[in-house]
Amino acid sequence: MARDFEDHCWKDIVDEEITEIYQPYRREVRVGRNPAVLAIDLYNKAYQGGNRPVREVNRQYEGSCGENAWKALEPTRALLTAARKAGLPVFYTTRHADTDGVRSTHRRMGAEAESLYHIKEELAPMPGELVVYKERASGFFGTPLIAHLRKAGADSLIIFGESTSGCVRASTVDAYSYGFHNVVVEECTYDRSMLSHKVNLFDLHHKYADVMHVDEVIEHLNGLARGRNAA
Amino acid sequence: MARDFEDHCWKDIVDEEITEIYQPYRREVRVGRNPAVLAIDLYNKAYQGGNRPVREVNRQYEGSCGENAWKALEPTRALLTAARKAGLPVFYTTRHADTDGVRSTHRRMGAEAESLYHIKEELAPMPGELVVYKERASGFFGTPLIAHLRKAGADSLIIFGESTSGCVRASTVDAYSYGFHNVVVEECTYDRSMLSHKVNLFDLHHKYADVMHVDEVIEHLNGLARGRNAA
Amino acid sequence: MARDFEDHCWKDIVDEEITEIYQPYRREVRVGRNPAVLAIDLYNKAYQGGNRPVREVNRQYEGSCGENAWKALEPTRALLTAARKAGLPVFYTTRHADTDGVRSTHRRMGAEAESLYHIKEELAPMPGELVVYKERASGFFGTPLIAHLRKAGADSLIIFGESTSGCVRASTVDAYSYGFHNVVVEECTYDRSMLSHKVNLFDLHHKYADVMHVDEVIEHLNGLARGRNAA
Amino acid sequence: MARDFEDHCWKDIVDEEITEIYQPYRREVRVGRNPAVLAIDLYNKAYQGGNRPVREVNRQYEGSCGENAWKALEPTRALLTAARKAGLPVFYTTRHADTDGVRSTHRRMGAEAESLYHIKEELAPMPGELVVYKERASGFFGTPLIAHLRKAGADSLIIFGESTSGCVRASTVDAYSYGFHNVVVEECTYDRSMLSHKVNLFDLHHKYADVMHVDEVIEHLNGLARGRNAA
Repeated sequence: MARDFEDHCWKDIVDEEITEIYQPYRREVRVGRNPAVLAIDLYNKAYQGGNRPVREVNRQYEGSCGENAWKALEPTRALLTAARKAGLPVFYTTRHADTDGVRSTHRRMGAEAESLYHIKEELAPMPGELVVYKERASGFFGTPLIAHLRKAGADSLIIFGESTSGCVRASTVDAYSYGFHNVVVEECTYDRSMLSHKVNLFDLHHKYADVMHVDEVIEHLNGLARGRNAA
Repeated sequence: MARDFEDHCWKDIVDEEITEIYQPYRREVRVGRNPAVLAIDLYNKAYQGGNRPVREVNRQYEGSCGENAWKALEPTRALLTAARKAGLPVFYTTRHADTDGVRSTHRRMGAEAESLYHIKEELAPMPGELVVYKERASGFFGTPLIAHLRKAGADSLIIFGESTSGCVRASTVDAYSYGFHNVVVEECTYDRSMLSHKVNLFDLHHKYADVMHVDEVIEHLNGLARGRNAA
Repeated sequence: MARDFEDHCWKDIVDEEITEIYQPYRREVRVGRNPAVLAIDLYNKAYQGGNRPVREVNRQYEGSCGENAWKALEPTRALLTAARKAGLPVFYTTRHADTDGVRSTHRRMGAEAESLYHIKEELAPMPGELVVYKERASGFFGTPLIAHLRKAGADSLIIFGESTSGCVRASTVDAYSYGFHNVVVEECTYDRSMLSHKVNLFDLHHKYADVMHVDEVIEHLNGLARGRNAA
Repeated sequence: MARDFEDHCWKDIVDEEITEIYQPYRREVRVGRNPAVLAIDLYNKAYQGGNRPVREVNRQYEGSCGENAWKALEPTRALLTAARKAGLPVFYTTRHADTDGVRSTHRRMGAEAESLYHIKEELAPMPGELVVYKERASGFFGTPLIAHLRKAGADSLIIFGESTSGCVRASTVDAYSYGFHNVVVEECTYDRSMLSHKVNLFDLHHKYADVMHVDEVIEHLNGLARGRNAA
């Protein structure tokens, strides 16, 4: 079931020249040995306006990822279930509505309700799972996430959420810098712009992470869960 | 001479839908008040194989940016000259050939000569300008760069170099997290893949930096230099 | 009114030999040019049990600084008033009662009320002043404090609070590493152990900060306030 | 062979009142499960002037730890030997003579020879052991140490070197913040001032580390080495 290293959503925009230039990055992808789950910014705001095209929902709900968010909902739910059965520690990031003027990006935003930044109910943390509040794109910057991962004994991460070109990318680059082996789960990661989504996954896959398909990751986690029950 | 916010190299691949979705990021771009220059990885390795297509030079010199690097050489030289005339502090990043197994990205590399990571002669630091040695993509990670910028009194950065999708992006995201106003200079920034180059500049422009054209930045620096001489 | 560099609370325990060895650290002390205030952990828990000897209050209220905290209350109130008149940005640190198993130090602690970590009413933040929640000793570790200080344009800090040997020391060392000029205000800083208090102030004064007396700092701030009103 | 929690060099200056107040910190000390060695600033400069009183050597060699350094030489050599037999990864810190104006502490220093900051020959790193160059007191600040420790799979540290009140303390506080279990080895750690030495070890022991005696640590390492050979 091993798919080709480049068999991903970016196939239709990456030409043969680029593929040749990036040849030296080819390697076998894998989930790390003691992974933790890092679920990035799965908050209500990303789903606002419902399962409709991004462009439409953004006219009313700025920052919503529309149908891209909704499409990822079921795979993400399944992935979280498999991760918990396998006993993996799960970490979430989100933010507070008001961060005293420090902003994650240059986007203009008005005053907002705190509930916009609550994790979407279907994907909500279980008791004992940690939610890290951040003020910048990376889940590591200005947060104690690194200390919690260390305490959990994690040597690798399974990362997903939104947006691919914002918080997922920034968090994954930092995780790589800290020395974690990273998997980014393609079907559970999304953005408002499909172009940025594809190119950022391409960049992450070649430089900082193993981008894997959700079925591959769930199969691996099911294996861990079986081993755990056998023991 | 103010150009449109989206008048940049990514114009030909960003469609009208994306432009609409990213409308809330539109703003006036500007160089910050007390800028420092951050020249990313302008080392010899990026120029190996000469002024030829990336694909060709990479067959022999893995990691070279070929003609993309060479095209940026003259604008970068001019920009550095203007920055020095304006009295700006200039910081460079590079790396050592051997970093004991900690790697910047997943790319496979053999043993290398230290001289590959010396700054290209035409763009070399002047006496008193600091070269920061890093082991990761970001010039901030695992380096004392933030302390040196603080000592220099910088509240903003003028960033350029290579690669757009690697060290330039990672450094700019970190600079934004630390609270700097960032300019990324389009014509002095390059990559091996033009697709990654364009989309990463697009992402940076909307989220973390003002991507500006080299002539705009040099004009601003010339203004600073005139003010300085008048004083 | 310039006092001797060693005219501080540690005089009675630092002998002539140590004074000679530390001679190369002697210098003029000063408040920095654009200072921000950093008030460390002035929360209710430090005052529990009232204005009584530390040993006595600790039998019932573990972690209270007893009379050492209460003695600092009036000078701290006066210092905060002067800082606000001078227009300085003021930052507080505190913590949440429950930090999911990540602890500031090795001290054993049971479940606690969140109100224990609210800032003491007499010293409470004014609207618009930022409270940074930390999980470790240093106000910088795992928090976005550095980004907020950058946004405030601070190049130096006026630090005080508790405990001298814990969070004040750790925050001051980090502030020095980030390149801030630091003043630690002697009479507004306290600990449970006077020995640790004195030696930590001694260490900070020689290595990382200018330990100054509260009257000196308030006089400086009054000067700033007058200049501000004149303008 | 378990000694009392307070059976350390600070016994003669810590009175019964302080001991009572610090009662809640009492616990069993231990070496962590996957420790790495962190040898702080064992460079030639600390030994300048020879095995003579600190005060005397400092008249000529500012910054030397004199007899305090020399007394630690043999225990440190023995500890390093035991750590290597046990297969522990060993990390050193030092600095460059010239760090472009960023300084570790407020001490005045003139131009210096780079060789002053080479590790003392008797304690020198073996091939493959990493030397981290730092510009600040902590071995973590502005260095990639955390990434290397992660790559080495370390969950705990065995820390020693100089000075207790400077780089050893700052590095240990940061290590604790990052979530490492820390042992500081008393007989292999030293300072110029015995007062600062004792109080800083006291602070570290209660808040951030298990201060252990070198014979206890070596015995533990010998046990690891035997287990390793048996396997």
